[in-house]
Amino acid sequence: MIAAARAAVDIGLEELGCQALLVVGSSARDPDLASFVGPVHLTQAFVVAPKGQPPRLAYLTPMERDEAAATGLVLLTPEVLEVTRWWRELPTGEAALAKVLSLAFEECGLEPCRIALAGQGEVGEVHAAARALERQGWTLVSGAALARQARKRKNDRQLRAARRVAAGTATAMRRVAELLAASEAREGELWLQGERLKVGRLRMEVARTLAAFDLEQPVGNIIAPAEEGAVPHNSGTDGRILRPDESLVVDLYPRGWLYADCTRTFCVGRPPEPLAAAHGSLLRVLERIDAKLRGRGDGKALRAFSLQDAACSLLKADGYATPLTDPGTESGYVHNLGHGVGFELHEYPSFRREAGAEGLLETGDLITIEPGLYDPEAGFGIRLEDEIFLGPEGPEKLTDLPYDLDPRAW
Amino acid sequence: MIAAARAAVDIGLEELGCQALLVVGSSARDPDLASFVGPVHLTQAFVVAPKGQPPRLAYLTPMERDEAAATGLVLLTPEVLEVTRWWRELPTGEAALAKVLSLAFEECGLEPCRIALAGQGEVGEVHAAARALERQGWTLVSGAALARQARKRKNDRQLRAARRVAAGTATAMRRVAELLAASEAREGELWLQGERLKVGRLRMEVARTLAAFDLEQPVGNIIAPAEEGAVPHNSGTDGRILRPDESLVVDLYPRGWLYADCTRTFCVGRPPEPLAAAHGSLLRVLERIDAKLRGRGDGKALRAFSLQDAACSLLKADGYATPLTDPGTESGYVHNLGHGVGFELHEYPSFRREAGAEGLLETGDLITIEPGLYDPEAGFGIRLEDEIFLGPEGPEKLTDLPYDLDPRAW
Repeated sequence: MIAAARAAVDIGLEELGCQALLVVGSSARDPDLASFVGPVHLTQAFVVAPKGQPPRLAYLTPMERDEAAATGLVLLTPEVLEVTRWWRELPTGEAALAKVLSLAFEECGLEPCRIALAGQGEVGEVHAAARALERQGWTLVSGAALARQARKRKNDRQLRAARRVAAGTATAMRRVAELLAASEAREGELWLQGERLKVGRLRMEVARTLAAFDLEQPVGNIIAPAEEGAVPHNSGTDGRILRPDESLVVDLYPRGWLYADCTRTFCVGRPPEPLAAAHGSLLRVLERIDAKLRGRGDGKALRAFSLQDAACSLLKADGYATPLTDPGTESGYVHNLGHGVGFELHEYPSFRREAGAEGLLETGDLITIEPGLYDPEAGFGIRLEDEIFLGPEGPEKLTDLPYDLDPRAW
Repeated sequence: MIAAARAAVDIGLEELGCQALLVVGSSARDPDLASFVGPVHLTQAFVVAPKGQPPRLAYLTPMERDEAAATGLVLLTPEVLEVTRWWRELPTGEAALAKVLSLAFEECGLEPCRIALAGQGEVGEVHAAARALERQGWTLVSGAALARQARKRKNDRQLRAARRVAAGTATAMRRVAELLAASEAREGELWLQGERLKVGRLRMEVARTLAAFDLEQPVGNIIAPAEEGAVPHNSGTDGRILRPDESLVVDLYPRGWLYADCTRTFCVGRPPEPLAAAHGSLLRVLERIDAKLRGRGDGKALRAFSLQDAACSLLKADGYATPLTDPGTESGYVHNLGHGVGFELHEYPSFRREAGAEGLLETGDLITIEPGLYDPEAGFGIRLEDEIFLGPEGPEKLTDLPYDLDPRAW
C-alpha cells in the first residue's frame, strides 16, 4: 500500500465519520481486497484499516499462513481470532463471522463505533453478520466508494503488473492483425488457410495468445464485424464469416492481476467512405485528448468529464450526434470517452459529469480513452481505445499499437 | 430452472419464514445468479422468487434487454422500475438500489415482509440498501444457504455444460501426460526438447489447451512436484525443475459456464515404494466409493460424509493417519473426500459431518471424489480426483482418464 492509498482511506473515513474500514472478500482476487493484499492466494480473509493506523489482515485458514505473511501486512491469525471455535460453537455462519469480526476490531483497539464496510462477497451472510454487530453497538455504513477511491491511484507494483497485462493484450491484437493481413477476399468473403475466416477463429487465437501470457478473459471480449460492431455492447458471433470492406471492432480486456483494456478496428480491403471519415475523426479526438493529458502537469486540476466534453465538441463539429448534444442517440458517438481500469475493468477515475473527487484525473491513475462512432443503419462501428497511465512525467500509453484500419499496414 | 430447484426454493423459504428470495449479483456469472439466468451476459440484474411463484428477473440496463429476454424468465424492465430516475434523483446508490428493490417487490405482489437475501456483490452497498428497506418494514435475512441448496441438483443444460468443461479438463490432463511421457531423465533432471522440464512449461501447456476449449482458470491450478505436492494447498512453483522418480500432483479446476475439477498424480521413472503403496491404497478407496455410489439407487439415502467415513476406515486399515482418527494430521490422509462442484468450485453437497439436508447425495448432484495421501517428511504427495454426476441410472464419471503414475502408460 502506498502513502496515497493510506491517505485516501483516512480522508474517506473522516468524511464518513467512521473509525475504520472493513474490507471483506472471498478471494484475494476480489477487487477491494486485491489492492490491499497483493497478488497472493487467500480464500478466507478480511482487512481492517483503523483510521491513522496500518491496515491489518485477518486470515481464517491456518493453511494460508504463508500467503498471508507474503502480503507484508500486520496479521491477525486464525488462532488469535479462535476461528475454529466460533464456527463450531455458534449456531450459524453469520454468528461466527460476526464474532470473528468483533474480535478483530477489538485486536485493533476499536470499541463499538461506526465502520465503513467494503469488499465483495455473499451479501446475505455479510448483511446478517453486520446486523448482529449492529445489535452489539457497531454501525456499518457503505465503504464501497471509499475502497474504490483508495485503489484509484496505482503504485509501482500495480503499474508493473498493468504494463505486463497490456503487453500481452497488444500481442494478441497484433496476432489478430496478422491473421487478417494473411486473409484473402474471394466472392465477398475472407478466406484463410483454405477456410472461410470466421469471428470464432480470431477469438480462439486471441484466447491462445493471452493464455501464453497467463491472462484470462473473465468478461470475454468483443470481436464484432459490421452490423454487430455497430452496437457497442454486441460481442460478435463466432460463426459470422468476415467480409472484405467491412468494419471489425476488436476490444480485448483480459485480466492478469489487474485488467487491461484495448480496442482497435480493422477493415480488410477498401473502407467505405463513412468508415474512413469516422476513422479520421477519431484520430483527431485521440490527438486532442493526448494534448490535454500532456497539459495536465502545469498545476491545473483536470476532470475526466472535461475530456468527454472535448471529444463531444470535436465530434459534433464533424457532424456526429453525441451523448451531450443528443442524449440517448444510438448513432454517432454514443458512449463515454473512457474509464479507470485496474482491479475492476471499470473503476475510478469516473468520467461522469456528476462525479465528485473520483472524477479528478490524478498522477497514478490508470485510464482508457476510447472514442467510437457507430452507424447501425449503415452497419458499421469503429472504436479506438488506448490504456494510459498518468505518470509523474506525463501520460504513458500502455497499448502502443498502430491505429490503421488496414491490417496490412500494421 | 427445473422443478427440483423451484421446490428447493419454496422449501427453504418456508424454513426461513420468508415470502421471497432475492438474489442480487454484479454479473450473470456470479454463482447464485448464474443458476437462475443461464449462460447470458448481464451486468446489473437481480432475481426475485416469491414463494410458489416463478422467479422474475429485473435487469437495470436497457442495453441488456436481449440478454434478459434470453433467460426465459418473467422480466421486470428498467422502464417499469424507473431505474434511471432513481439513480438521478436519489442522493446515493444505496438509496436508489433500495427504491428499485422495493418497486420490484411490489411488482411481485409483495407487501413489507421477511425476504431471504442471497447473491454475490458489493457487501457495503447491499447492506446499506438492506438497512434502508428494513426502515420501510422489510426484514432481510441470509438466503445464502438457500440459494446454494437451490443449485445443488443440476438440470440437463447444466449437466451438458459440465460435461463439456470436464472434457476440456481431461484433454489438458492428457497433454500433461504426453509431455511427461516424452521427457527424458538426465543426471537426475527431466529434459524435454533440449530444455530442462519445469512446472511452468506444463502450466503454460495446460493454459493453452484449456483456452482452446474456451475455459478459464479463475482460481489457477496445482502442478506440484514432490515436496510441494506434499502440502495439499501448495500450487507449485513455475521455476521448479522436474525430476525422475518423484511425485507430481496435477489438479486442474477450470471454469466454462460451470467449473470442472480433476486431479491425477504422475511419476516419471520408478516410484519410491511408499508412493507406489499409497497409489494402491487410493485405487482401493476409489473402487469402494464407486461401489457405494452404485448402491445408492436402492432407496437408501446416502450422506456424503459416509463416504469420508468409509475412506478413512480403509486408509486407517492401510496404516495411514486420517482426519477422523488423528484430527489435525499433516501426514497421511489430511482432508475431506470430496465436494460438490458447479457454479462454485466448492458447493453443495457438503461432505462435512455436521451437514444437514445439504449433506445428502441426491440424483442431479455433481461431486468430486478426491482421496489423497501426503508425506511432507518423505517429500511426496498423491491425489486422484474424479468428477462424478449422480444420474438417475447411477454415477457417471465425467473425467474418464487413466490413474497410472507412469505417463507412458497413458
